Amino acid sequence: MRDVFVVGGAHTPYLGKFHPDFIWKKHPDFGTRTNPNTEQYIRTIVADTFAATGATGALVDKAFIGNFAGELFDNQGHLGAFVAAADPGLVGKPITRVEAACASGGLALSNGVDAIRAGADIVLVLGAEVQTTRNAMDGADYLARAAHYSRQREIDPFTFPALFARRIKAVVAHTDTTTDDLALAAVKAYGNANKNPYAHMRAYKMDLAAAKASPTFLQNAELTDWLRVSDCSQVSDGASAVILASPKGLEKLGKAKSEVVQILASVIAVGAIDQDPDPLVMATVKAAAQRAYAEAGLGPADMQVAEVHDCFTVAEVLATEALGFADAGQGARLLRDGVTALDGRLPVNTGGGLVAFGHPVGATGVKQALEIFRQMTGQCGDYQLATPPTVGVSANMGGDDRTAVVSIYRAG
Amino acid sequence: MRDVFVVGGAHTPYLGKFHPDFIWKKHPDFGTRTNPNTEQYIRTIVADTFAATGATGALVDKAFIGNFAGELFDNQGHLGAFVAAADPGLVGKPITRVEAACASGGLALSNGVDAIRAGADIVLVLGAEVQTTRNAMDGADYLARAAHYSRQREIDPFTFPALFARRIKAVVAHTDTTTDDLALAAVKAYGNANKNPYAHMRAYKMDLAAAKASPTFLQNAELTDWLRVSDCSQVSDGASAVILASPKGLEKLGKAKSEVVQILASVIAVGAIDQDPDPLVMATVKAAAQRAYAEAGLGPADMQVAEVHDCFTVAEVLATEALGFADAGQGARLLRDGVTALDGRLPVNTGGGLVAFGHPVGATGVKQALEIFRQMTGQCGDYQLATPPTVGVSANMGGDDRTAVVSIYRAG
Repeated sequence: MRDVFVVGGAHTPYLGKFHPDFIWKKHPDFGTRTNPNTEQYIRTIVADTFAATGATGALVDKAFIGNFAGELFDNQGHLGAFVAAADPGLVGKPITRVEAACASGGLALSNGVDAIRAGADIVLVLGAEVQTTRNAMDGADYLARAAHYSRQREIDPFTFPALFARRIKAVVAHTDTTTDDLALAAVKAYGNANKNPYAHMRAYKMDLAAAKASPTFLQNAELTDWLRVSDCSQVSDGASAVILASPKGLEKLGKAKSEVVQILASVIAVGAIDQDPDPLVMATVKAAAQRAYAEAGLGPADMQVAEVHDCFTVAEVLATEALGFADAGQGARLLRDGVTALDGRLPVNTGGGLVAFGHPVGATGVKQALEIFRQMTGQCGDYQLATPPTVGVSANMGGDDRTAVVSIYRAG
Repeated sequence: MRDVFVVGGAHTPYLGKFHPDFIWKKHPDFGTRTNPNTEQYIRTIVADTFAATGATGALVDKAFIGNFAGELFDNQGHLGAFVAAADPGLVGKPITRVEAACASGGLALSNGVDAIRAGADIVLVLGAEVQTTRNAMDGADYLARAAHYSRQREIDPFTFPALFARRIKAVVAHTDTTTDDLALAAVKAYGNANKNPYAHMRAYKMDLAAAKASPTFLQNAELTDWLRVSDCSQVSDGASAVILASPKGLEKLGKAKSEVVQILASVIAVGAIDQDPDPLVMATVKAAAQRAYAEAGLGPADMQVAEVHDCFTVAEVLATEALGFADAGQGARLLRDGVTALDGRLPVNTGGGLVAFGHPVGATGVKQALEIFRQMTGQCGDYQLATPPTVGVSANMGGDDRTAVVSIYRAG
């Protein structure tokens, strides 16, 4: 099996409501300027990624783009042909758009890893999403297409928040986790994002009192008390990309192994969407993690940093359990004990996670890989870990634990 | 590079208006029965493909599903998780949904080939699409998301038919091709489909007089005279799938090389969607074909059968030129001279092509691969070629020549 390395990459700022640069009715430029569309995000992220890594369109052998719902939010599918339009050197290259809801970016990453193993030397992996073109109710309807729409849409106008409120209700009933623990997760996320210039919520403060006082919003009477606005990830626009390379690709780019990060495993697991998951367990994430650890020859105790898919605060708790950092039902202890804080033993979501870095759906799984790279190479600025980690893991999830992509990284 | 084989597969019937089994207002069961949805097509095609090949969910290492617009036509994305739901053995497997408009199926095939090269032994490749849930005008708006929507949507309410009417107008002005030649292409397609029990138009007759008398329908005054209904592919529902295997995968399935078909190359090329293509040339298909021929060590003269992407009749003419079967501007001669007929030297679209076999968008590229397999293994019944071909090619296209997937096959 050929070795696969992350050479570097780029993020755009993640934009949306409460970001100072996001154009909406309360912004002074409202009516005179608009936010970037998907095409513009793709152009920007390709150019920035080439600038950051020394890659060029001509050097790229293959490309993968993760995007969930461009057809709905931006009237645009066939996004591979927008990647080709982003750089003259990319015209004619093999470019594949992949989709697995919120795991679209992870799918792009994992298929990019396979492309290297199949013979490519330099692979461009990007994710992009625009979601702020529609109002919240329409957006929630679009996002429900990541669930089993005909079966699950009616649980609430906000289908996905309701599905995760159901998890919170079950987790609080059956484990030690409390809603105060989930407030701690939100405070950690916002605190980290406040140190991150790319974060959607970089300028929005959230202390424990604010998190506990955050309003509920679901219409489903059995679920509404269980989910606060502060428990939710953001409706963000944005893009992230990485360049992957084989050993020969590193030579072409003039990179030493000491400058890059190896991907030891990148495993996709997919569950059956016609069945409701056990609300206490992220079984698909766990299955992907177990295979990824086995492929990498490492285990949870080896991990020094993690990016997990906190689409809702409870998902961070359950993901840390699925990754083996805590026993079943005990994930919240990591938050209480500060284990997953920036100065903890195993920092999780150092840039703010989906809750506060933001969640431009198709970009998220790619962002996770770049965040691990940036921590390992000391590029995280105000949220840089004191000792750059050398081993880490990312866990990207689509739907309610229906697609999972778990990747294991080691500094070169 | 590991060898890759097609072991077999399955089609569902392709359904839509004028198919005797399609439920619509003129069908006696209208109101009491409905047509299958995407979920049902996925279940059916997975079961039929396993039955046809001896593969099982447990044996599948990876899966790819091509689908263009489930989010729009069927309110459903995240289709990988529907593949996992189709068979208990597929739960937990790596499954990737890919999209490149009408080349989504080809993209699934090509990425499936790469998965074998990266180490998988048995890969399930399927394509599925449902399009008959919406009226023609809404469907045309959805399909326009395969073009550059903000720039090209306004050319006509039927955006894609207008883009290809533009090609016809240019081709007739600048080459020997006439609209009568395009009528010949339609007659060939329907004639072949009338022999094909899976074809959408299996029961619909189209002779030369009918093709020449077929009505126009565009609103764009400069283009409407150039495109007849008989020039267009069908709005179909349906699914197709194949099983790919490595040499070790063949062993697991108990298949001899003599029973299967090797894929010598499967090349994706993607053009820039912000530029209008030369209307006289399928440059992206040509680029993919040239690379595929080089990889396979074969050329146009070696081909004995072809599946090409006749989304409109003119696209068949231009695709045969792009594949090197005729010089630029001379593709229509193949039709006039009967070269591409069932009894010709190089039969093209033996089962009826997109024009009459039908065009369930995400399935088409997978269907092409299975059709080559079926001809090579003598399974085509009434449209079986007298001498089963041993070398063949498929060319799947997304948008107006923006994504192309060209694959070369050799009987085992």
